[in-house]
Amino acid sequence: MTKTVQVAVIGCGQIAKTQHLPAYKNNSRSQLKYVYDIIPERAQAAAEQFAVAHVASSLEEVLQDGEVEAISICTPNASHAAIAIAALEAGKHVLCEKPAGMTYDEVIAMKQAADKYDRILNIGVVNRFNTAVNKIKQLLDAGELGNLYHIYCSFRAHRSIPGLGGPFTSKAHSGGGVLIDWGVHFIDLILYILGRDLQVNAVSGATYGELGKDLANYTYKSMWAGPPRLDGTFDVEDFVTALLRTNGPTINLNGAWAQNIGEQAMFVEFLGSKAGIKLMYGGEFTIYSSQHGMLYETASSFAQADMFAEEIDAFLQSLSSGSKNRANVDETLLTAQVIDAIYHSSATGKEVYL
Amino acid sequence: MTKTVQVAVIGCGQIAKTQHLPAYKNNSRSQLKYVYDIIPERAQAAAEQFAVAHVASSLEEVLQDGEVEAISICTPNASHAAIAIAALEAGKHVLCEKPAGMTYDEVIAMKQAADKYDRILNIGVVNRFNTAVNKIKQLLDAGELGNLYHIYCSFRAHRSIPGLGGPFTSKAHSGGGVLIDWGVHFIDLILYILGRDLQVNAVSGATYGELGKDLANYTYKSMWAGPPRLDGTFDVEDFVTALLRTNGPTINLNGAWAQNIGEQAMFVEFLGSKAGIKLMYGGEFTIYSSQHGMLYETASSFAQADMFAEEIDAFLQSLSSGSKNRANVDETLLTAQVIDAIYHSSATGKEVYL
Amino acid sequence: MTKTVQVAVIGCGQIAKTQHLPAYKNNSRSQLKYVYDIIPERAQAAAEQFAVAHVASSLEEVLQDGEVEAISICTPNASHAAIAIAALEAGKHVLCEKPAGMTYDEVIAMKQAADKYDRILNIGVVNRFNTAVNKIKQLLDAGELGNLYHIYCSFRAHRSIPGLGGPFTSKAHSGGGVLIDWGVHFIDLILYILGRDLQVNAVSGATYGELGKDLANYTYKSMWAGPPRLDGTFDVEDFVTALLRTNGPTINLNGAWAQNIGEQAMFVEFLGSKAGIKLMYGGEFTIYSSQHGMLYETASSFAQADMFAEEIDAFLQSLSSGSKNRANVDETLLTAQVIDAIYHSSATGKEVYL
Amino acid sequence: MTKTVQVAVIGCGQIAKTQHLPAYKNNSRSQLKYVYDIIPERAQAAAEQFAVAHVASSLEEVLQDGEVEAISICTPNASHAAIAIAALEAGKHVLCEKPAGMTYDEVIAMKQAADKYDRILNIGVVNRFNTAVNKIKQLLDAGELGNLYHIYCSFRAHRSIPGLGGPFTSKAHSGGGVLIDWGVHFIDLILYILGRDLQVNAVSGATYGELGKDLANYTYKSMWAGPPRLDGTFDVEDFVTALLRTNGPTINLNGAWAQNIGEQAMFVEFLGSKAGIKLMYGGEFTIYSSQHGMLYETASSFAQADMFAEEIDAFLQSLSSGSKNRANVDETLLTAQVIDAIYHSSATGKEVYL
Repeated sequence: MTKTVQVAVIGCGQIAKTQHLPAYKNNSRSQLKYVYDIIPERAQAAAEQFAVAHVASSLEEVLQDGEVEAISICTPNASHAAIAIAALEAGKHVLCEKPAGMTYDEVIAMKQAADKYDRILNIGVVNRFNTAVNKIKQLLDAGELGNLYHIYCSFRAHRSIPGLGGPFTSKAHSGGGVLIDWGVHFIDLILYILGRDLQVNAVSGATYGELGKDLANYTYKSMWAGPPRLDGTFDVEDFVTALLRTNGPTINLNGAWAQNIGEQAMFVEFLGSKAGIKLMYGGEFTIYSSQHGMLYETASSFAQADMFAEEIDAFLQSLSSGSKNRANVDETLLTAQVIDAIYHSSATGKEVYL
Repeated sequence: MTKTVQVAVIGCGQIAKTQHLPAYKNNSRSQLKYVYDIIPERAQAAAEQFAVAHVASSLEEVLQDGEVEAISICTPNASHAAIAIAALEAGKHVLCEKPAGMTYDEVIAMKQAADKYDRILNIGVVNRFNTAVNKIKQLLDAGELGNLYHIYCSFRAHRSIPGLGGPFTSKAHSGGGVLIDWGVHFIDLILYILGRDLQVNAVSGATYGELGKDLANYTYKSMWAGPPRLDGTFDVEDFVTALLRTNGPTINLNGAWAQNIGEQAMFVEFLGSKAGIKLMYGGEFTIYSSQHGMLYETASSFAQADMFAEEIDAFLQSLSSGSKNRANVDETLLTAQVIDAIYHSSATGKEVYL
Repeated sequence: MTKTVQVAVIGCGQIAKTQHLPAYKNNSRSQLKYVYDIIPERAQAAAEQFAVAHVASSLEEVLQDGEVEAISICTPNASHAAIAIAALEAGKHVLCEKPAGMTYDEVIAMKQAADKYDRILNIGVVNRFNTAVNKIKQLLDAGELGNLYHIYCSFRAHRSIPGLGGPFTSKAHSGGGVLIDWGVHFIDLILYILGRDLQVNAVSGATYGELGKDLANYTYKSMWAGPPRLDGTFDVEDFVTALLRTNGPTINLNGAWAQNIGEQAMFVEFLGSKAGIKLMYGGEFTIYSSQHGMLYETASSFAQADMFAEEIDAFLQSLSSGSKNRANVDETLLTAQVIDAIYHSSATGKEVYL
Repeated sequence: MTKTVQVAVIGCGQIAKTQHLPAYKNNSRSQLKYVYDIIPERAQAAAEQFAVAHVASSLEEVLQDGEVEAISICTPNASHAAIAIAALEAGKHVLCEKPAGMTYDEVIAMKQAADKYDRILNIGVVNRFNTAVNKIKQLLDAGELGNLYHIYCSFRAHRSIPGLGGPFTSKAHSGGGVLIDWGVHFIDLILYILGRDLQVNAVSGATYGELGKDLANYTYKSMWAGPPRLDGTFDVEDFVTALLRTNGPTINLNGAWAQNIGEQAMFVEFLGSKAGIKLMYGGEFTIYSSQHGMLYETASSFAQADMFAEEIDAFLQSLSSGSKNRANVDETLLTAQVIDAIYHSSATGKEVYL
């Protein structure tokens, strides 16, 4: 029988309750020993819902318990690095929600702590466990796209600023807006598909915060993590554009939490000389090719894995095998570096060379 | 009564027959005195169809006729500059089809000739006479978009390489592919809308010629200026991506004569803080805004002017008034400079600063 | 802390179960003390579903309980006036479902009772709490329509006679057919939008009961409050047409519970000199205008309020504040008067002057 | 062989050139002897196009020629009555374009002249020769609609004011706007279908001239009989609403030359107890019925007659047979009376009883 890992979940907000806690609960490799949240009532409620043994009264209580082998970090972005490093230092393996840190420097520090204390540090790059993403990676690696020369990536919504005025829209709490919150998913899945030989040479980008800044007059139909705090802060970007040069394809992206274009456009297009693929984010994909003098448009269809269950199972497997997997911090450094470079290019008005 | 201008049309291909010749024919300010083409039969046929007085046996015959005041250049791109400069030197006013020249240097030389010989040199930037384009310019100037911070421009088709293997796909004859052929229209209309105070600071871009290069295996449904010459040349780009920084909005574009994504996407999106506009190229536009706590999507509808008739009438008016108008070469220099910069950035793999 | 109002709901049919009971249940200002229905099982089931403290054995039991401050009347139209007047006399505040009464005289008697006993009497004119309706009122009041000269109102369905042969189609139980059942909603929302200065001068109308009268041969796809009672009564109208003259716009309406035109047409069009609005009943609206020489068609989009929750919350607020609101019987008298006049004009074949 | 009738066409505008002249030209019963127009060039051009023998220099010249048996009146509305009466007095048979006159009194005077001089006076009620209209009349007469209780008639366009500022929009020249210009067609075809036993008892209506009155700011995409004369007159209605009571169905109509609702809605709905019909004006119709417990929607399809050719052939046949047909002025008096009554009801704000 497999040894059961004792787990603690730090932060009991939306992502913990909907994904991490049920995934550990349903995984035979793990047992939930602790939950912790700076709001004790949230931890208490989560403990009851998922039958967690203890509600920790402090982070230290968790870190000092020698039985706990692994922790999941589900707190706001600003505390990811500090908690991860403390946990690694205390000898815990760590699964940290995305984005790994607010800056590339934070992520490097986290990676160094994982190396120093020889622990597993995985990041919640959950699209690496998405079935469609992995199928596309498989098709690319099999040469079915020919020369992949350009990727166009769109993560644009009409009105989807989350929690306007709260932590999401405060740079001090989140590190950024739509780029670090949504862009991290798109950039990471693209870099993952392109594989380990990819080098990003140059990054040119610009960010704007135009629709959220007049908080009282921001018009929307519904708000995730709402309602807005009209006396709160909005100092992050709600729009981003960027062009990346690599040793493979160019990558062009446009992202919007909000914009005055009334269309939802969430997709990634892979343009190859032999075939192209359009992935509808979170859904299926279409392959465009030609053969026998005909133009083909092929819709794909397949069973979708539960991404979060896979992510957490892979983390637990990594612990027992000792080997780093696709979600290990080492694999995701480039994602953090690219995001950093886009912010830097926007601030300086110049292309940044990595 | 208005004095009638004697006109010669040089080059009797598609654009001359469908646009320039009928426009001069129907305009009371002009009389068609000559047509000329290096293929005499084409000139003869055009002369008959449009009741042109003479079929010139050489370009010189036209330029030496003191009665001819204006010429329209409808030849392939490679000869635009030479013909225009010769005509200006001969004291003629010139309307030259787009793109003005194959390079920015050629366009500068053309402009200098116009200045030196004090003649009008207009370029066929026909979208400057498109009703939708002018309405958007009017809305922008009236402040209805608020702060215009980003423009996304798409001129992507599934399979639309023109005349594969012929002059269109030979750099020596055309100067480039989809960027100089289609992109010139989109870039020019954007720069026109943004107005004379615009400065373009930096241009980063990349071009690819992936689908056309294997001429024999290029699959398509129909071909403009076809059929293909399978023993011909394809050394231009069929895809372009670019990001421009300006003293106003960033401008991002993707263009494809051909690609393995089976969608036609020909549009320009103007993202403003107060409102946004999506222009369907060649058609109408939609305005997205918000008011009274509601999100508005407004379809516009209006009578479309005949762009070519307006372009040629404006050229003839410019002759009689002596004043330069929106299609004068002076107004379009930036368009040529930006196209040049995209090619340069693609060649060097670096952002270009203007 | 707000004082909690003890409420009784009289009549436990569809409208009570789907709207009134859940709205009181979820409102912190109210507590459900009683339900009553002439069919005891219906009251019992409702009490269990909504955790109501008591199932009353008679209306008197409710009216004699001094703790009950407010009652909702959800019975068939024929009993509205009697129950409302008894309740007001017993010192209760009343929210009565629409239509207030079967005739204008009944509504006047209800209003006089409310005045005499100094209680709040609100009517279930729920569209006064519809977001689209209020936005249109706001646009009209802001002058955005210019001179509003005509309203065309259509509430026509192909086959939607409710409960054929039952109370809905019996004049003795309902007071009328499609006019009093559906028309009341449309007329009331129009009069509400037009505001308190509106005077209706003349009413010309006609009603027909053609499709329901041969009960056995009425063909339909589904029936609300069905199945039909083929041995029942159908003596009401299934079609109505009318033209109203006011001190503002003319109002023209056509309504059908059933007709031999196979289209659903439920909308109100507001024709103004500057702009027009087409409201899709229960949905969103489109604004038609012109500006900058263009014709505009603007689709609106906004968060829809829960109309019934708002209606009941407004009733409860009215109780605590003591001030009459937009759903007070005083505000809806004209609606009842107009309906009466249409029936009268139809009976006499002449225009009726108010 | 049939005797050939010598014909004169008075007025050589649009309706003469597109309909009357070609119809007489192609009809073996007639020969075109004269054309006349107050603008001699128009008459001359028409004579050349249709090989008419003479261009009359005055109306008198035509009326004094004993060979001319029939005249068609294609002049503006204001001169219909005077020309018709003069022609009848001169012993000519007359086909007069619709509307017969500007007022009911004018039409009565015309009818009396026809009676007095015993000549045929037909009106251009061309829809009486429309195939769909006649098929519907046939279905109604065969009892297939059961009891026809209501007709809803819509002739509403978004932007279709004809010749803004010219004769069409000047009451002195046209007698009215959309009611007399378009409404005459719709009202006449309805009254024709309902047949000779129909009595109209009461008419209530209202007219508005809101969109055309600010001539300079009227926005449109194209204009029939344009361009507008911005210094001209607009004193007619561009919107009409009316409700008619008859000894048969009620008839409700709404008509707009222009309105701020962006839909074209040109149709007539016949609501019967057994079946209903929706006629798309100028096109085909759909029958809605039920049978065998099923709801039926039946699209009709048939060869459309050339209405104007039929109208003119019927006029010529009437001359040779001496019997009055469906387009005789006697058959159309009610149409003129109803239009008059709608204007009168609008002016007085009261229902008018015939």
